[in-house]
Amino acid sequence: MKRRDFLKKAGAGAAVAAAATAVSAPAVLAKKKIKWKMVTTWPPKLPYLQTGAERLAKRVKEMSGGEFDIKVYAAGELVPAFGSFEAVSNGTVQAGSGAAYYWAGKSPAAQWFAAVPFGLNAVGMAAWFWGGDGLKLWEETYAPFNLVPRPAGNTGVQMGGWFNKKIESINDFKGLKMRIPGLGGKVLAKAGGTVVLTPGGEIFTNLERGVIDATEWVGPLHDYIMGFYKVAKYYYYPGWHEPGTVLENFFNKKAYDALPKEYQVMLDMACAETYNWMLSGFNADNGAALEKLITQHHVNLVRFPADVMAQLRKLAYETLDEIAAKDKQAGKVHAAFKKFQKQVGVWGEVSEKAYYDVIAEKFSLKG
Amino acid sequence: MKRRDFLKKAGAGAAVAAAATAVSAPAVLAKKKIKWKMVTTWPPKLPYLQTGAERLAKRVKEMSGGEFDIKVYAAGELVPAFGSFEAVSNGTVQAGSGAAYYWAGKSPAAQWFAAVPFGLNAVGMAAWFWGGDGLKLWEETYAPFNLVPRPAGNTGVQMGGWFNKKIESINDFKGLKMRIPGLGGKVLAKAGGTVVLTPGGEIFTNLERGVIDATEWVGPLHDYIMGFYKVAKYYYYPGWHEPGTVLENFFNKKAYDALPKEYQVMLDMACAETYNWMLSGFNADNGAALEKLITQHHVNLVRFPADVMAQLRKLAYETLDEIAAKDKQAGKVHAAFKKFQKQVGVWGEVSEKAYYDVIAEKFSLKG
Repeated sequence: MKRRDFLKKAGAGAAVAAAATAVSAPAVLAKKKIKWKMVTTWPPKLPYLQTGAERLAKRVKEMSGGEFDIKVYAAGELVPAFGSFEAVSNGTVQAGSGAAYYWAGKSPAAQWFAAVPFGLNAVGMAAWFWGGDGLKLWEETYAPFNLVPRPAGNTGVQMGGWFNKKIESINDFKGLKMRIPGLGGKVLAKAGGTVVLTPGGEIFTNLERGVIDATEWVGPLHDYIMGFYKVAKYYYYPGWHEPGTVLENFFNKKAYDALPKEYQVMLDMACAETYNWMLSGFNADNGAALEKLITQHHVNLVRFPADVMAQLRKLAYETLDEIAAKDKQAGKVHAAFKKFQKQVGVWGEVSEKAYYDVIAEKFSLKG
Repeated sequence: MKRRDFLKKAGAGAAVAAAATAVSAPAVLAKKKIKWKMVTTWPPKLPYLQTGAERLAKRVKEMSGGEFDIKVYAAGELVPAFGSFEAVSNGTVQAGSGAAYYWAGKSPAAQWFAAVPFGLNAVGMAAWFWGGDGLKLWEETYAPFNLVPRPAGNTGVQMGGWFNKKIESINDFKGLKMRIPGLGGKVLAKAGGTVVLTPGGEIFTNLERGVIDATEWVGPLHDYIMGFYKVAKYYYYPGWHEPGTVLENFFNKKAYDALPKEYQVMLDMACAETYNWMLSGFNADNGAALEKLITQHHVNLVRFPADVMAQLRKLAYETLDEIAAKDKQAGKVHAAFKKFQKQVGVWGEVSEKAYYDVIAEKFSLKG
């Protein structure tokens, strides 16, 4: 038996058992002991990403009086990081935690639910999911994989990355060796850069030795932990390639459908609450970490020139159009995303942009 | 017996009964039928505010398998809108829904937990509550009233208001008759304006007849429903006076403490989830309503001049300092708020502001 077939059989069996339990005992469902496993794509203890998954499991357990018990495994503890999609899809385990752009190889459309270069920020993605058609489209995209997705976190606007070469025009990307995965990498390549896929643990050394000229990571909190400020000259902003990266939980559909309604709602509530909690924590901690980077480590914070942003934006939209043209579901999601971004775009200019313009004069780098 | 004493006794009795139940039957608590009443400050069916309270009650009921049942009453159905704080404080009912600035007369510090002119926006307030010391300070502020507060919604950045006089300099506020309650009103008065407190139902007529020159309300969605575009020349932005107004749920402390832990966590999760859902809905619907106001009703959208904003900001911070100087808790909360706004301020400039700058060129009023 192939490993894949084995996983499929095991998954189907578990799901059927769960469904039978759910149907046969409706009156005591709320007190039904249910044990789930969640496999994440994160290293142990990674702030907000791994700890957020663990916090979510704890809340669900508290709400269910200990009856709905989700044991969380970090990447590699049960399956490799990028094996989690498959493991949940096959029913080997019931739940996973990741970011949808990891699954571009399964479905190119998945990328739109994590981070779109020059796309929506954290509140924009939330508006698309819960005030628009975003979550419905995501469910549709994951349905062929027997998965139910839920937004369960957001990093906020990421940073543009750590550079040892200065970016003064779009031409400065030509030949630039940068660690930047996903759609951002595709845009960089279009601008003439060389995408280097370096595992997290090797980035620091590669940057130090000049194997790469630049790397993106997350934001001040996580970047500080990685120590990039010790080996890079410039810290660029904004993170045009990931303006509000969504973290996800995904559930095996049969396992989710077999849950008592009470537990389904608990899961949904806990995921949305985690979205809010994670974004809040990122914003608070990134603020503190950025201050430390500036005042204690004298990091050279540099803004990408406006015309570089305009040209990367053009390349980004070309990239998205190209991917969308090659895959039916990606085409559908891309069209919906563009329409929604237009709907909230002018409102963002009138509300949040105007707010930040007014506030930045008081609370700014200038003092 | 005075009405107040009667309410106090009734409240204490109910709480003691609830506490006794909680202590005597720990094993079946999760299945314990609990009936609560929630009194809101909102008119029936008011989108997001009243409907959000009702949605929250529904979710809690679903999570508890129908056992934790919160019946929601709109303003006036059980107690008057502004009687809800007292009714929950006294234990007449267990829960309320409002905005903390309504209770400035009870505790001036309460205002910082709803909307601070030139203060934090929706994600900033969330960061203060869940990533900083904001919620702890709010609990401390409400504790003397026997209340437990929870953030449970946000309108996002509001609009500056509907004007029949053009604002080209700070002097144009002199003698301006405007409907603008709360801290915003205090700032307007400092600028020489006349604050007119008009109930919601009379604003339209007062604006039409010139009894007032201007009014603020919420944002495009709610403003459209009020029809102000029919009787006002200019629609100003941004809503400097309410950059991210927080809606609240508050619970009678004895009733909350007497709940089984399961139900406490359900309430907390549902409130935070509602914060996220409401902000998302506001952003999506405000975007659509603004487009309709511009394209179908040819509303004249005008931005407050930058120097007017700078001068109002100065007056706003003076106003806050004055209130903080007169009340111990307000002083403590104000100091913490200022510190936190500084912590996230530079980060906001580098992340969200830089993002909106880049995006606004593509999605903007200019088309």
